[in-house]
Amino acid sequence: MLRGGIDLGGTKIQAAVVGPRGAVRGEARVPTPTTGGPADVAREMAAALSESAAQAGVAPSELLGVGVGAPGDADPDGVVSAASNLPGWSGAYPLAKELSELLGTSVRVGGDVQVATEAEFRLGAGKPYRSILGVFWGTGVGGGMILDGKPWTGRGNAGEIGHTVIERGGARCPCGRRGCMEAYAGRSAMQAEAEHRHKKGEKTDLFKIMRKRGNDRLKSGDWERALEHGDKLAAELIDRAVKALGTGVASAVNLVDVEGVILGGGMGIRFGERYMGDLRKEMGKHLFVDDRPPAVEVAALGDLGGAIGASLLAGSR
Amino acid sequence: MLRGGIDLGGTKIQAAVVGPRGAVRGEARVPTPTTGGPADVAREMAAALSESAAQAGVAPSELLGVGVGAPGDADPDGVVSAASNLPGWSGAYPLAKELSELLGTSVRVGGDVQVATEAEFRLGAGKPYRSILGVFWGTGVGGGMILDGKPWTGRGNAGEIGHTVIERGGARCPCGRRGCMEAYAGRSAMQAEAEHRHKKGEKTDLFKIMRKRGNDRLKSGDWERALEHGDKLAAELIDRAVKALGTGVASAVNLVDVEGVILGGGMGIRFGERYMGDLRKEMGKHLFVDDRPPAVEVAALGDLGGAIGASLLAGSR
Repeated sequence: MLRGGIDLGGTKIQAAVVGPRGAVRGEARVPTPTTGGPADVAREMAAALSESAAQAGVAPSELLGVGVGAPGDADPDGVVSAASNLPGWSGAYPLAKELSELLGTSVRVGGDVQVATEAEFRLGAGKPYRSILGVFWGTGVGGGMILDGKPWTGRGNAGEIGHTVIERGGARCPCGRRGCMEAYAGRSAMQAEAEHRHKKGEKTDLFKIMRKRGNDRLKSGDWERALEHGDKLAAELIDRAVKALGTGVASAVNLVDVEGVILGGGMGIRFGERYMGDLRKEMGKHLFVDDRPPAVEVAALGDLGGAIGASLLAGSR
Repeated sequence: MLRGGIDLGGTKIQAAVVGPRGAVRGEARVPTPTTGGPADVAREMAAALSESAAQAGVAPSELLGVGVGAPGDADPDGVVSAASNLPGWSGAYPLAKELSELLGTSVRVGGDVQVATEAEFRLGAGKPYRSILGVFWGTGVGGGMILDGKPWTGRGNAGEIGHTVIERGGARCPCGRRGCMEAYAGRSAMQAEAEHRHKKGEKTDLFKIMRKRGNDRLKSGDWERALEHGDKLAAELIDRAVKALGTGVASAVNLVDVEGVILGGGMGIRFGERYMGDLRKEMGKHLFVDDRPPAVEVAALGDLGGAIGASLLAGSR
């Protein structure tokens, strides 16, 4: 029996149709609408899922169900609120209900980062461990936890590792506070810093590359291209991000002492292997039990992890 | 049936004999030996426990058992190692076995901070909650967690909240690293800072008070006395410690999102109520979900929490 999964991101909507043990039978990606409102987003989600289903040779209504990993807060009925990265979504929207009508199958909604963490735990790089911390390095930095085999979500908002303070009074974070890990490591904060330094006269090809590739903001691929061209500012800012991640992740490990740390997200997947030595070294500086660091691995499910993780929710109620 | 509990600290050994629901029937406190080795410490522990038992009108051998909260690492058989605050205890010592022979009853050993957290969870300020973070502000800063009603110890070393980095490259911590929360908030680091500033010419009565009270290092009571005398340096350093605690605890709450934070330890019990407003305010600056802070409360079992918590281990195997 096939399941559908949709990862609803601020930049893109990634859908997948998934068979047993996470085998992907179809997948489609569309840009997240930047105008309109939740209903427009839901329509694009349905379109992407339908395309994935067509690839898999089924109609959406034949799926066991569809799971969604969403930003913001999702209640048990799939009403999503405070998804501030999405157009016109400041209020609450009954996403599960609306999407279910569009697709003709049941829909369940979970947190984007938490479903991606569960996917890595059950099917990806987290399989060998009973407790993991998922760190998703992308536009921002999110986190998810599995403790003793079970998701730990606290009062519903656990895992906000991006807002671990690593430097009091430090860099301004997109969240408005200062010194958060995300203020150094989030792609959005990295872009702001690059713009700031570029305006002050530092040389960089980052923005030339961005425009040439038809992007209106710096994507992970733009950073990679710049790095490959020997761009000094890009290299410095990625280095700064990795140092911040190492500090914040070490503090988290000191607190929860998990067996494994799984690094995902657009930046994590693209740069994880290349910077793994630096990340481990930086963590080592701050780990209290430094002779027994946790395993640190790059997410194995790649870009599809969110959608695969979401599919695990399908039909689960 | 009565149980014995012993909190083995770097400064003092606190023993208690405890009845049902945590009622204390006898208690005794002795200084931790500063010379000798583990066997000397074990003898002092047995003496304190015997005195508590006498107060309760029983012989140690009549107790259901004795629990010990110990620093360092305790294995399931009660072998304690790496208790670096204790004299001659750099290796491993079979504390449960030796103490059991001295007392004529079974002995179990757990982590000092973890048993104190469990005591607050089951009998103290944590009773209303299903998930708590215990923060023990004393010589250092330790932490313990109960998640969904169960202790979370990770791979055995969870809860090292004192070594959350709050300021990269910041103050030197007794652990040798820089910028840990404990580097600002631990009483031992606070004393080092006070000495440093005093030598540089800042006025303070802290050390005069310490000597007058017959102490060879600054105790929580010395800090309180100085504060009451309007000592500016003491006030500044306590303020600095509370700010550090607020930052580190907020980062921890962002990650694990517990219902309650219980503030214990010698400093926490003495200054918790007085500085609660400052602590909450500082946490509020860094909490990601700042409209729904966790409850923050001072440990209800006071100085005896560690011994009461240890007694909960007694006879449990």
